[in-house]
Amino acid sequence: MDFSFDNVTIRGGFWSDMQKKNREVTIPAVYARFSETGRIKGLTCCRFEDNPEAPHIFWDSDVAKWLEGAAYVLAKHPDPKLEALCEDIIDTIAAHQWEDGYINSHFTAVEPEARFTERMSHELYTAGHLIEAGVAYYCATGRDKFLKCVERFADLIDRVFRAEGSAQFLTPGHQEIELALVRLYKCTGVEKYRDLAAFFLDKRGNNDKDVTEIWDLKASYTQSDKPVRELSEAVGHAVRAGYLYTAMADMAALTGDEKLRAACHRIWDDITNHKMFITGGVGTSSHGEAYTVPYDLPQETAYSETCAAISLAFFSQRLLEAEGESKYADVVERVLYNGFLSGLSLSGDAFFYENPLSIHLRNRVKDVSVEKGDRFPITQRKVVFGCSCCPPNVNRVLASLERYVARIDGDTVFVDQYTDSAIAGDGFSVEVKTDYPVSGEIRVACRGVGKLGLRIPGWCRKFTLSVPFRMEKGYAVIESPGEAALSLDMTPVLYEANPEIFDCAGRGAVMRGPVVYAYEAVDNGGYVPERYRVARELNPNVGDTAFCGIPTLTVDGAFVPDRAELYTPAGEPDLQPARIQLIPYFAFANRGPSDMSVWLILL
Amino acid sequence: MDFSFDNVTIRGGFWSDMQKKNREVTIPAVYARFSETGRIKGLTCCRFEDNPEAPHIFWDSDVAKWLEGAAYVLAKHPDPKLEALCEDIIDTIAAHQWEDGYINSHFTAVEPEARFTERMSHELYTAGHLIEAGVAYYCATGRDKFLKCVERFADLIDRVFRAEGSAQFLTPGHQEIELALVRLYKCTGVEKYRDLAAFFLDKRGNNDKDVTEIWDLKASYTQSDKPVRELSEAVGHAVRAGYLYTAMADMAALTGDEKLRAACHRIWDDITNHKMFITGGVGTSSHGEAYTVPYDLPQETAYSETCAAISLAFFSQRLLEAEGESKYADVVERVLYNGFLSGLSLSGDAFFYENPLSIHLRNRVKDVSVEKGDRFPITQRKVVFGCSCCPPNVNRVLASLERYVARIDGDTVFVDQYTDSAIAGDGFSVEVKTDYPVSGEIRVACRGVGKLGLRIPGWCRKFTLSVPFRMEKGYAVIESPGEAALSLDMTPVLYEANPEIFDCAGRGAVMRGPVVYAYEAVDNGGYVPERYRVARELNPNVGDTAFCGIPTLTVDGAFVPDRAELYTPAGEPDLQPARIQLIPYFAFANRGPSDMSVWLILL
Repeated sequence: MDFSFDNVTIRGGFWSDMQKKNREVTIPAVYARFSETGRIKGLTCCRFEDNPEAPHIFWDSDVAKWLEGAAYVLAKHPDPKLEALCEDIIDTIAAHQWEDGYINSHFTAVEPEARFTERMSHELYTAGHLIEAGVAYYCATGRDKFLKCVERFADLIDRVFRAEGSAQFLTPGHQEIELALVRLYKCTGVEKYRDLAAFFLDKRGNNDKDVTEIWDLKASYTQSDKPVRELSEAVGHAVRAGYLYTAMADMAALTGDEKLRAACHRIWDDITNHKMFITGGVGTSSHGEAYTVPYDLPQETAYSETCAAISLAFFSQRLLEAEGESKYADVVERVLYNGFLSGLSLSGDAFFYENPLSIHLRNRVKDVSVEKGDRFPITQRKVVFGCSCCPPNVNRVLASLERYVARIDGDTVFVDQYTDSAIAGDGFSVEVKTDYPVSGEIRVACRGVGKLGLRIPGWCRKFTLSVPFRMEKGYAVIESPGEAALSLDMTPVLYEANPEIFDCAGRGAVMRGPVVYAYEAVDNGGYVPERYRVARELNPNVGDTAFCGIPTLTVDGAFVPDRAELYTPAGEPDLQPARIQLIPYFAFANRGPSDMSVWLILL
Repeated sequence: MDFSFDNVTIRGGFWSDMQKKNREVTIPAVYARFSETGRIKGLTCCRFEDNPEAPHIFWDSDVAKWLEGAAYVLAKHPDPKLEALCEDIIDTIAAHQWEDGYINSHFTAVEPEARFTERMSHELYTAGHLIEAGVAYYCATGRDKFLKCVERFADLIDRVFRAEGSAQFLTPGHQEIELALVRLYKCTGVEKYRDLAAFFLDKRGNNDKDVTEIWDLKASYTQSDKPVRELSEAVGHAVRAGYLYTAMADMAALTGDEKLRAACHRIWDDITNHKMFITGGVGTSSHGEAYTVPYDLPQETAYSETCAAISLAFFSQRLLEAEGESKYADVVERVLYNGFLSGLSLSGDAFFYENPLSIHLRNRVKDVSVEKGDRFPITQRKVVFGCSCCPPNVNRVLASLERYVARIDGDTVFVDQYTDSAIAGDGFSVEVKTDYPVSGEIRVACRGVGKLGLRIPGWCRKFTLSVPFRMEKGYAVIESPGEAALSLDMTPVLYEANPEIFDCAGRGAVMRGPVVYAYEAVDNGGYVPERYRVARELNPNVGDTAFCGIPTLTVDGAFVPDRAELYTPAGEPDLQPARIQLIPYFAFANRGPSDMSVWLILL
């Protein structure tokens, strides 16, 4: 396993609590839902009387992601019961692997003759998740049974797609296997896997064999409209896109391919300059769960799938590892505290697939004379979905947060994400003590470290560091570090959006440190957010209630009183001074349905 | 014909110009499109090789509304060519009327066995428009051939629905015949027609024979969920609703039915206090073309069908005639200058079915990776629609504006709508000289008039009248009037909306007199409206360019400069002083596609 996961221990504070909840509640809950819905039984490649399509084409990938998450847990927190569940799953998968290496419960049970014939059937996507799980489980336990299974499957895929060309398509209709093959290569050292990943990247948008327009989807939906090195914009299905971009960054780092690297930079700039919600959510539209055009960031219909946010964190982390610039870690942080974490309920057992930034309950019931009205995201999290990709993705990301905490580059240890943690390796250690992001106070103690790089977050407008440093790529770099205290100013800040984002124009959003805040009606007299105006001078109070330790805020603003008329001459503003209560965005929708908004109209 | 139409001559100014355009361009254009699309030929009850459903179930109603409009033109402006077209249509319809009086090109040609079996097939709606046309043509020309046709048809309907009960439904699935039968009764004096109208009203929402839930439509879609006297809210398909409410007001006035009258008032209050766009447009949602819930008035997806605005003018005018209160005339005026007139291009030959109050062109092209994205209204008017109810409705309303100008009640002549006009009757006359709404200067000269009531519009905050008067029901009433000069202050006014209208919160809209103004990007550097802020102190300039004589405006505001970043700390507002150009709303979308908004963010 790469440096960061094995060498980091998260010991306390916000993310430690989240990891504990993940272990104790979320991972068992997702397993239970997957059992109830047939996903576990489906691994036996049985048919289901009431559902001729089952095992569904997605199901193996759901379980594989759960297994990958469980593996990360086992690596840090031995748990025989959990391990037994994993072994059962692995035994079942292995028992139903074909002689030639093929693994897929749907195709095995339902349409074995259709193996590798339909590009949009998620076969290689599922393979990718199995491979990632195989690698993770091997790294966690040292047992290679499942790793060998997925190697044999990867060998088959390599033969069918690359050597023989006997599959009826050339590149996956849903990307994922590319980044998985890179992991498999890094784990095993077998170059074939790297080369197969390169093959899938190189052939994408560059061949006549793939059907790239299907149903009402254009070629750009699957990022198959152009060769990857020519991509400049994030377009199409956001999770497909994010996994592709991650693999592109992986491959650019492995091979030094400058064209691939440049494409990654163009795409990342496009996302973060034009297509990212303030929460780090991406993928604007429910139509195709897709990236759209610059500045199209509607708050209430924001699709902003939990998996898409995760894919942006993956992509950003890869670029951080390649480039060392703090802006990439800033985006990872923005995603983790906001658009990713909103995907999980405070109770730990319910999930959002879509993560809107605004809710008006009225819009869900407005079309009173017809059965079906406008489409809006759901307002309360669910324990499982028909397409339940997000819950196990939350499992595996929470269980592997250690990946994001630190890096080593030469003789420098970089601390990318602040959490109470120990970073240790051959002859060196860094202890990080902090309750971040409750406060911005961070103390580090180094032993045997050449240089230490401490990330100064992009949101931070003022900080102090107790020892001499120089700034480099957004990091405060300390030579021969011993002990040091970093203090980041956590004063809440009001943000404005680019004026081309129609929905945010004339509005402001509040962040405290990396945490985006939201208005919920339940805290503010039951009124819709449009009844309030937020002051430019927030005059904030940090509240004494908290969600997962993150305090609520109250800020200055005004309330617009009731009016009887629909339209009245404007005259002087008829406003009452008011304090506005805000909660961390990730905690919205945990107290029943409520009107909600991240962006409030400016006073 | 009732007082107002026959006794009024519109002589010059804004509406006179519109009526001229209607005669010279719009009515010929609609006829030409109806010829090209088979609607005229369809009256022969022929089949169409390429369209097994044709003649479509709507087609007769389209032609009937055109014919009704042509009749109003003939009443005021004899035109042998137009009359010959009308006679041809009438001869064709008469030649294909069944022995028993039945008229319907679709059912005659396509499914004669299905007469009166399917409530949602618009059979009685079409009958209603034929009846209205028959009455109008008789009143205009004195020739009763077509009136006799529709009387025979009404006789058949009365027999089948009321006497025999042999139809498979009891009340129309699309209202219209109710108000038409009242007109037929008023024209012929035959009480059976009034009673049949009453029957359709009384049985509505009150019987087991009508199928009231069909497809994905609830009973309220057709206002069939409750007996009419119990209705309190405007719900369901807005045109169905508006025609129903108009007939309810008609019947309440005819019979003195207090319960019906009270229902009308509850509904009208609900519309004008909760469900009306500032343009007078109604019917919020494309789902069911329907009224929704209070304050649900989204500006960009506003359905606001031209026909629905017309139906609100009808309903309001009936209540004005019954109650004499100026607030009803205010709504008629709001509709006519804005949400109705926007339905017609300046060229006179193209139409909006939907009349949005905001356009972002980007939203029409944002879903780049899928074939179909979010639904938005079209941005440019079309010469004809598949369902082309609106164009001939524009024809007939423009050709009958005389209806709305004045009323007599006892010895008082009420001037409801100001336009250069002559109002004359037995032994009296009122001359109205004005260029309203270019200016607010109105001069009246009366002869033989007992009292004169001059409406003081609800939008008018300051006026002067040269002679003594007392205010009554919103009218300045002058005893024994001779000459008088009324001056209405036309200073542009900034309006705010009820804070529960999410889309308008923090925004303002400009009106000058009865005319709502709009921002178009084409006048403002090509920027989307969100790039500007409008000042509370408008400091308005009345422009020297005009649309149909209505001047453009420039008002004070500010411009938000470009930013590179998606999100930035707010700090001090970064605004540049700017003047904002506005045009009359009705004139939007006449210079190619352009971003547009009635409501601008307040400075």
